[in-house]
Amino acid sequence: MRVLGLDPGLRHTGWGIIDVFGNRLVHVADGVIHPAADQPLAARLVSLFRQITAVVESFRPDEAAVEETFVNRNPSSTLRLGVARGVVLLAPAECGLPVAEYSANFIKKAVVGAGHAEKSQVQLMVRRLLPGCDGGEPDAADALAVAICHAHHATAQRLLGAQG
Amino acid sequence: MRVLGLDPGLRHTGWGIIDVFGNRLVHVADGVIHPAADQPLAARLVSLFRQITAVVESFRPDEAAVEETFVNRNPSSTLRLGVARGVVLLAPAECGLPVAEYSANFIKKAVVGAGHAEKSQVQLMVRRLLPGCDGGEPDAADALAVAICHAHHATAQRLLGAQG
Repeated sequence: MRVLGLDPGLRHTGWGIIDVFGNRLVHVADGVIHPAADQPLAARLVSLFRQITAVVESFRPDEAAVEETFVNRNPSSTLRLGVARGVVLLAPAECGLPVAEYSANFIKKAVVGAGHAEKSQVQLMVRRLLPGCDGGEPDAADALAVAICHAHHATAQRLLGAQG
Repeated sequence: MRVLGLDPGLRHTGWGIIDVFGNRLVHVADGVIHPAADQPLAARLVSLFRQITAVVESFRPDEAAVEETFVNRNPSSTLRLGVARGVVLLAPAECGLPVAEYSANFIKKAVVGAGHAEKSQVQLMVRRLLPGCDGGEPDAADALAVAICHAHHATAQRLLGAQG
């Protein structure tokens, strides 16, 4: 199974692709999308949508997982996060992929073992769990962590399904 | 010029199309999109995206205008509004239309003459400004109000441009 992880943001959206062979995870690719900040909002969303679609078309993942957006205390920041999240959820679904969502704490627990881990700990564990991956930019490492979380969760669900 | 107005929401997104001949406005069509509430979020966004795209492909508007989302005091509601708004801004832009945004108060001022008008006053004025239009569902009337606001604003900007 090939998984696309996505960490949504209007200024930076991280993406990461991993292959899952049972318990073994293999790093495929990662990157960060930076829609031009000087353009109108609708144009930035088009750029975000097309770049995610291009990643899906290049690497053909089977499933996608998105980090649930942090609800900020500032309502306008929350609204902007929501706008980016709408497009990040839409793009893989429009390509026909099932899209799962996980909270930031759930992802940290799955990858580091603690729900309130530091960003640097997440990057370190991503490098350890994906040999050969240098961890990339911080937003890309977060996206790889989402993919790892989904791989563990989906494998566990399949094992539970086989038992039941 | 043909204008598409959109009033975004995850449960109900209103749309309305008008033709603008100088000062004269003609009602073309309107409706409300209701993505199935029992589906996962990503599937609802796909449904919203495809239905807006279908409206654009059927009626071929030249420009689109979207009501700026109300920032709710409840952060999760704000986030959900943002998610819908992201897709509602994206869909016409992805079809190549310029997309303008107007605040709810600016729209009410343009249509009714007062920034804090009641919903029923907006519906009444939409019916008066668009002869032959019954005002439709409330969300569709709001979308027609966005289109009317854009028609006035765009005409005024063109006249100013001609003077300058």
